[in-house]
Amino acid sequence: MSTANLPPAGTPADDEGFRRRAGALLHSAAGDLRRTSRSAAADLGLTDADYAAHLAPEQGFSWDLAQRAATVWPLNERDLVPVRNDCPRGVRVLRATESASSARVFQRGGIDYYEYRATAMSRLASFRPAWIRMLSVVTDDDPHNADVHWNNGHMLYQFTYCVGPVNYYYRWNGRDHVLRMNTGDSIWGLPFSPHTFTARNAEEPAYVLALTYGGELMGDAQHELAALGPDTARGFALDTDSAAAAQGRLLRSYLDASALPLEHAAELSGIPAGRLAGVADGGTTLTPDEVTALAAALRLSPRDLLPVVPDAVDGVSVCPAATSRSWYHPPPGTATTGCANWPATGCTRTPAPWRSTRSAPTPTPPTRPSRPCAPTSTSTSTTSAAAPSGWPGSTAASGTKRCWNPARRPTSRRSSAPSSPAAVAATPPTPPACSRCASAAG
Amino acid sequence: MSTANLPPAGTPADDEGFRRRAGALLHSAAGDLRRTSRSAAADLGLTDADYAAHLAPEQGFSWDLAQRAATVWPLNERDLVPVRNDCPRGVRVLRATESASSARVFQRGGIDYYEYRATAMSRLASFRPAWIRMLSVVTDDDPHNADVHWNNGHMLYQFTYCVGPVNYYYRWNGRDHVLRMNTGDSIWGLPFSPHTFTARNAEEPAYVLALTYGGELMGDAQHELAALGPDTARGFALDTDSAAAAQGRLLRSYLDASALPLEHAAELSGIPAGRLAGVADGGTTLTPDEVTALAAALRLSPRDLLPVVPDAVDGVSVCPAATSRSWYHPPPGTATTGCANWPATGCTRTPAPWRSTRSAPTPTPPTRPSRPCAPTSTSTSTTSAAAPSGWPGSTAASGTKRCWNPARRPTSRRSSAPSSPAAVAATPPTPPACSRCASAAG
Repeated sequence: MSTANLPPAGTPADDEGFRRRAGALLHSAAGDLRRTSRSAAADLGLTDADYAAHLAPEQGFSWDLAQRAATVWPLNERDLVPVRNDCPRGVRVLRATESASSARVFQRGGIDYYEYRATAMSRLASFRPAWIRMLSVVTDDDPHNADVHWNNGHMLYQFTYCVGPVNYYYRWNGRDHVLRMNTGDSIWGLPFSPHTFTARNAEEPAYVLALTYGGELMGDAQHELAALGPDTARGFALDTDSAAAAQGRLLRSYLDASALPLEHAAELSGIPAGRLAGVADGGTTLTPDEVTALAAALRLSPRDLLPVVPDAVDGVSVCPAATSRSWYHPPPGTATTGCANWPATGCTRTPAPWRSTRSAPTPTPPTRPSRPCAPTSTSTSTTSAAAPSGWPGSTAASGTKRCWNPARRPTSRRSSAPSSPAAVAATPPTPPACSRCASAAG
Repeated sequence: MSTANLPPAGTPADDEGFRRRAGALLHSAAGDLRRTSRSAAADLGLTDADYAAHLAPEQGFSWDLAQRAATVWPLNERDLVPVRNDCPRGVRVLRATESASSARVFQRGGIDYYEYRATAMSRLASFRPAWIRMLSVVTDDDPHNADVHWNNGHMLYQFTYCVGPVNYYYRWNGRDHVLRMNTGDSIWGLPFSPHTFTARNAEEPAYVLALTYGGELMGDAQHELAALGPDTARGFALDTDSAAAAQGRLLRSYLDASALPLEHAAELSGIPAGRLAGVADGGTTLTPDEVTALAAALRLSPRDLLPVVPDAVDGVSVCPAATSRSWYHPPPGTATTGCANWPATGCTRTPAPWRSTRSAPTPTPPTRPSRPCAPTSTSTSTTSAAAPSGWPGSTAASGTKRCWNPARRPTSRRSSAPSSPAAVAATPPTPPACSRCASAAG
């Protein structure tokens, strides 16, 4: 990986902030344990002056002291180790040239399989994106092709954004699947699902942005589960075979935690005991009114009684480019007020390039190059510079389905924004200026 | 604090597990960053053999290596530091005698103010309970009494369980409050709310179990917020002045994060745009059907659109003993099947002692001491041994209100379990055996 934007080896990022927060953490941990500075110093075998020095930002972090604290106090060393802010100016930039120079080729099964390139990443986020090019070319969609080499899955969730003729293979419940992906197609996959990628031809570029992340399960939760061990970890996985089963197990977990008999919860909530038992047994779900009443009775928020609704099928959620939603932001017709960063006359908005590659040219091309709605004074914007060549690509997307999100399908609908190539050509939006330039768009 | 159950200083708890997990963490972190063992070793300036040695459980954790990794890779040292499992046998025990011997007296304002005693605690949980005795005696309820010395509040939430004539003072939005607490009364308070305790007389014991905890905001979240700084941290606190305001801000945050115009979300969900704008502006809340439709449109779980419903008033939630709910577990009439740990004939169940102290003696006293529903073979049960003398206490609880949980009050109702002293005396429950001995009760 490129070490651009990193200080020279030996000087970790944000060392001053790290030292300052390390002192504050020690002070805070001692306070949480009802230690005065004097008693904390005594516990740690330090003089008052030495202890005070450790709280000061000038003092370097001491692993020995953290280890001593983790011995005499009921805490862990990591509780005393701060994170490093490697993004003091609000952005981290990795230029396309740096990304290209970070390229590394890895082999699988004795053949060159992937080329990896670094992308921007930060110590403040558990996201681990990478640019990955498929070097193994196949001429079929057979998951057992000799040039298809699977991984064993990994701990992280993964979004994959495809460019070119990419085959995506994934295994779920022992069954192998293959998806023919094209530019703009994307997929989301669950942890520990084995998967792999190949290219369908050698002429076109075939690569992905693989955006892996840990979600709520990395960090503290993962450390705690690791210490508790796999058997205990299993117990935290409530049944989610169905919405009713998930809600039943959730309800049972609250009743058990409170040692509250179901009959008592029924009486407190006004829900008939037989009906509540049916919910707890996973036979049916609570109505909204019952959620409200039961949450009040158990002194929870209603959201606590609603399980997460998984929408993956066979461990994945697929969004083909050809049928994905599209929209404009801000919407056509938004007042063109301009903003301090970009005058109203300057911020033309054209259809997104990945849209225009799949449609006829817009009938009203901007008279100057379309620019992102961003401050002109900053030199950190990487919108174009950091985009790998060909992203978004020039390959027409194929596929006829909308996002494969069966749980959502009944209520999801086509956007009214121009979505077919013909519609894009026929109804060009009015180009408003970036009236919400400073908002979350972008 | 007592160091009972801790290994001698210098040998932190669970050192073998710590080393094993440290190696696994390094391996996992390298994999997340798409490093093979060889490329990881090269990044870290190690030979392949040295790198392999660091992955092995025999190798001690190396802070220097963690620091090197945090320099060349976009991660933090703490990401490589495991937690310690100080509870390998499932329980941590602190005997009453050990607790008493841990007593420390702290002064405030030049007078002895609190006596602290340790209670059981673990590195695996962010709970920080302490036994605290009030040494400052007051004869009024004046928060400005010269013997009342406030703290500045702290980062942790706090449950407080009272024994004896305890005055609880708390400050919220600049206003001082005093609560006259008695045995069995309990209170929950928000972080950073200044508070303090005194005793109302010197004759009776007056102490509390102060159970402080960090909730979801300690650990990773707190470290991340600390690195981002207070201004950014403020931005994460969505308006919760009302349920409608909280839901409106929550909805806006999803729309902003998706760069999805409200009009588009309205169309996708079938909710009229004017109506959805009213929700986003905090003027009204979504109906359950609208939550379902909007969650589908935004590809969220319905729970994601429901804010936490705070139920604290002036930063606290108070539960007077005299009006708190009571119930039996298992409920009277449960089949007396007994269990392997406790034969059906042995596990008599009498009304909880804190109930019987406030009522006439039960008409059917057990013929042998009532025992907790627990295995007889274990020596780790502390149900009676660890309970401080006088807990539950003998002081009659006063107060006439139910738990002060206004948000819940409209729907919360009295339990059908015997609740008044007379009722307890009149309707003793049938003593069933512990048919759910191994369940979550207790």
